[in-house]
Amino acid sequence: MVRAQLLLHCPDKPGIIAQVTNFITVNKGNIVYLDQYVDHVENIFFMRIEWELDGFLIPKEKIEDYFQTLYAQKYDMSFRLYFTDYKPRMAVFVSKMSHCLYDLLARYTAGEWEVEIPLIVSNHEDLRHVAERFDIPFHCFPITKENKAEQEAREMELLRENGINFIVLARYMQVISEQMIESYPNRIINIHHSFLPAFVGAKPYHAAYARGVKIIGATSHYVTTELDAGPIIEQDVVRITHKDTVNDLISKGKDLEKIVLSRAVQKHIERKCLVYKNRTIIFS
Amino acid sequence: MVRAQLLLHCPDKPGIIAQVTNFITVNKGNIVYLDQYVDHVENIFFMRIEWELDGFLIPKEKIEDYFQTLYAQKYDMSFRLYFTDYKPRMAVFVSKMSHCLYDLLARYTAGEWEVEIPLIVSNHEDLRHVAERFDIPFHCFPITKENKAEQEAREMELLRENGINFIVLARYMQVISEQMIESYPNRIINIHHSFLPAFVGAKPYHAAYARGVKIIGATSHYVTTELDAGPIIEQDVVRITHKDTVNDLISKGKDLEKIVLSRAVQKHIERKCLVYKNRTIIFS
Amino acid sequence: MVRAQLLLHCPDKPGIIAQVTNFITVNKGNIVYLDQYVDHVENIFFMRIEWELDGFLIPKEKIEDYFQTLYAQKYDMSFRLYFTDYKPRMAVFVSKMSHCLYDLLARYTAGEWEVEIPLIVSNHEDLRHVAERFDIPFHCFPITKENKAEQEAREMELLRENGINFIVLARYMQVISEQMIESYPNRIINIHHSFLPAFVGAKPYHAAYARGVKIIGATSHYVTTELDAGPIIEQDVVRITHKDTVNDLISKGKDLEKIVLSRAVQKHIERKCLVYKNRTIIFS
Amino acid sequence: MVRAQLLLHCPDKPGIIAQVTNFITVNKGNIVYLDQYVDHVENIFFMRIEWELDGFLIPKEKIEDYFQTLYAQKYDMSFRLYFTDYKPRMAVFVSKMSHCLYDLLARYTAGEWEVEIPLIVSNHEDLRHVAERFDIPFHCFPITKENKAEQEAREMELLRENGINFIVLARYMQVISEQMIESYPNRIINIHHSFLPAFVGAKPYHAAYARGVKIIGATSHYVTTELDAGPIIEQDVVRITHKDTVNDLISKGKDLEKIVLSRAVQKHIERKCLVYKNRTIIFS
Repeated sequence: MVRAQLLLHCPDKPGIIAQVTNFITVNKGNIVYLDQYVDHVENIFFMRIEWELDGFLIPKEKIEDYFQTLYAQKYDMSFRLYFTDYKPRMAVFVSKMSHCLYDLLARYTAGEWEVEIPLIVSNHEDLRHVAERFDIPFHCFPITKENKAEQEAREMELLRENGINFIVLARYMQVISEQMIESYPNRIINIHHSFLPAFVGAKPYHAAYARGVKIIGATSHYVTTELDAGPIIEQDVVRITHKDTVNDLISKGKDLEKIVLSRAVQKHIERKCLVYKNRTIIFS
Repeated sequence: MVRAQLLLHCPDKPGIIAQVTNFITVNKGNIVYLDQYVDHVENIFFMRIEWELDGFLIPKEKIEDYFQTLYAQKYDMSFRLYFTDYKPRMAVFVSKMSHCLYDLLARYTAGEWEVEIPLIVSNHEDLRHVAERFDIPFHCFPITKENKAEQEAREMELLRENGINFIVLARYMQVISEQMIESYPNRIINIHHSFLPAFVGAKPYHAAYARGVKIIGATSHYVTTELDAGPIIEQDVVRITHKDTVNDLISKGKDLEKIVLSRAVQKHIERKCLVYKNRTIIFS
Repeated sequence: MVRAQLLLHCPDKPGIIAQVTNFITVNKGNIVYLDQYVDHVENIFFMRIEWELDGFLIPKEKIEDYFQTLYAQKYDMSFRLYFTDYKPRMAVFVSKMSHCLYDLLARYTAGEWEVEIPLIVSNHEDLRHVAERFDIPFHCFPITKENKAEQEAREMELLRENGINFIVLARYMQVISEQMIESYPNRIINIHHSFLPAFVGAKPYHAAYARGVKIIGATSHYVTTELDAGPIIEQDVVRITHKDTVNDLISKGKDLEKIVLSRAVQKHIERKCLVYKNRTIIFS
Repeated sequence: MVRAQLLLHCPDKPGIIAQVTNFITVNKGNIVYLDQYVDHVENIFFMRIEWELDGFLIPKEKIEDYFQTLYAQKYDMSFRLYFTDYKPRMAVFVSKMSHCLYDLLARYTAGEWEVEIPLIVSNHEDLRHVAERFDIPFHCFPITKENKAEQEAREMELLRENGINFIVLARYMQVISEQMIESYPNRIINIHHSFLPAFVGAKPYHAAYARGVKIIGATSHYVTTELDAGPIIEQDVVRITHKDTVNDLISKGKDLEKIVLSRAVQKHIERKCLVYKNRTIIFS
């Protein structure tokens, strides 16, 4: 059964929950999910609500319009409306390391996620064989300082042609240009191999070893134009000891990276992430 | 500012959230907390809602009555209503180990919790000195097979006299009788020193060592008449290795026990626990 | 450079470490790893020591004999000697769920492990396509109550022909017969989808849901003839809430299962597991 | 039975373990603990070894001298020798928050640690009542910019008079001067309320909230002259969500802080910490 998913935020005022739930209920929608949160610092109300469209009195294609007119204007809301019969289309960008890519594709192939992966992009040929194992088109755009703008333009063209909604950087070892980031606002998901904000930038495991930390982490975040500073979606950590070499950290970190990235991608696919002022609300 | 806290559950039907939030809003209450959950297996709706009473049109002492008449009957609801200007009264039961008691009293003395602790009960004299350090009356009821019923009757009398709302068993090494349990349904909180349901009963650390587990845990639960089988409020774990002796497990376990128990007590004090069919809903 | 790896245990006595390290050092071996542990309950000494064979005065093929004569007899030792130029050969058994298999094969294909995987065995055809993606022979032995003994005999024959050293049950949903278990003592690694010893047997996620636990786990262990009771190699857990349905537990559990199984397999491949009386010593 | 505890490090060479264990064994010492580690990056060998002195042929007061002459010179070792019949003397420094102090004193009073706590130092009067509850002398040295050098001189004098071996900063909200730090090299233990190196300096919970992290941490480290940059002894973390306010982080963080600090103090008391180039080796 098709469901509608509504994510919204607006200045907090009494009565919003009552109004929105009433809107759905009087129009004979059955609410199957509601999670809300008030940021009392910023005085912002956030909500995610999901209802079954079977028997809903407002036609699917007019819901957005009605909601805009009746509530969004009145409460100064920002909102996004989704339907569960539309599968988002995701591109995966990789370089040379395969662990995150395998994890994404194993879930995809097993049918765990409501998503399409029409293509994989890389700046190296190394992982073409993985794409071929899973029968997914692999596009290689080698990038140098000189050709970066041009290659990214070709990538953007490819993404447009394939109707890509969001991009997953699965250990893609290239900084994305501002122009590309701004074309996919809060729709490029990166995995950084440290517990951000510790160890921003290159070689975080080497830095973690040098600092002598007892726990390492991985962080999945939306990409913004400031390096490794975008809104965090998910983090996790694992305990290490003085016996762990840099290679041990890299090895233990790989398991973290793939799990943390996949959890973040899943939350995004389920439309449970909402970004506000560089922080995420992750609905339950 | 005084707030009302309403916890309820009932068979799930469309419109309940809208009705309840509307009830509060039209009567000029400002909702500051809402968390809800639908158990789709049992088809039960659960909700915790909290609002400021300042300016609320219905007098505090009549809210329960109004809510009962207008909604509880209609939706076949069970509900409990609390006010934040009433501090619950908690009794602590201990035996010989001090770690949980110190942790509870340190928080209490530092003013972390909205609770009163008018007394400590024990079946041994060992921890009288701790109670004295914190100036809390200590009542010792040594228990033997012969005097158990009589001693528990005296304890119950003492609890009544002191208006005790709930009991915390802080490593109290005595099984509570059915009669006492039934007098405090879902209001006796125990800490069991294992990851339940593994290692029910006595000497769980010895059993964990013998089984060779790699992780140990602690579990806080409401006491029911079946040993260590009541609704679980909180659990946590810590990693161990083959190098850890039984004494190491006991030592590492103590830190778990006190933290897990204190988290559970805090959730109970904040009225964020709801029990349904031997499972807890822990509101966020 | 080839290294020797020696794992041993014996009744604890003064001087064993000195004797063993001296044996290696005077024969011009360079020790690159030493981990030891004394079980003071059983009074057993355990050790894992690794040294470079380059320049070692005793020929590789005679080390076992010399060590047996000079030390093992004297101290009543059990020991196993390995060389790093021999890759163990591992068979993977699967049924219908692919997540553990993908995780094992992704690591294998990426060259993370010093192991050979010459074949995959299943009682169902479902995962043949995964084996084919990775170009590994897939052998299907459908099992019924009637043909079980016969099919296992064929499996055993296949394992022998392929020189299989150890077996990994990657969510293989069939109980292995005693005969097969005894042919591979402490060399069959299983993943059980619960935090053992809680929820032994079938449908542990359903049982965990029913019990209302706040944390779920996965356990990798060597298979013994008693169901889910063998020596535990590795465990891990993840936090859940009352909002998680049985399907959520299954989904979150899958990530645990694959990581826990792969960690256990890695420890086994590195010859860092030693079993003594149903407990494992996992060397660092 | 009294035991000797020897911690050492030196350039790694073949034969050191054999030599040291042989030294103890031939002199009739029974080794009850051995943990060693080779840093292959720096090529340094580290070892902690513990043996029973009963029947040991070298008199207790001459062991250091013998070991220096026979081995330390030869291998260019740094070493420290302790005996288990000497209880180290620890001073606790606090400001206004009581949670770490209570946790330390509860363990101390329960006899969990082989340590003496002859005094508590503070720059505020707030926690005098806690010291009094536990009958430990409380010394208040209010500190201003003007009197800091003078007050620290008085503190140092007090520490000397009381034979203090090491200092625990239990949320002491004052930067310690270089002179004092250098008088207690790797013997001042601090708890920092973040997952270092993230959020160095003041108000880390506010910074963590602003950055929108999904996990917070606490770090216990030896104090060096660079702020929050000393060798890390222990860290731990706890998961948070967007719903947690700064006050929630502070509250959840308190539990981390006290546990992490107490674990670090315990490791120090057990002489299981060794510092090398701003990293710690924490023996098992």
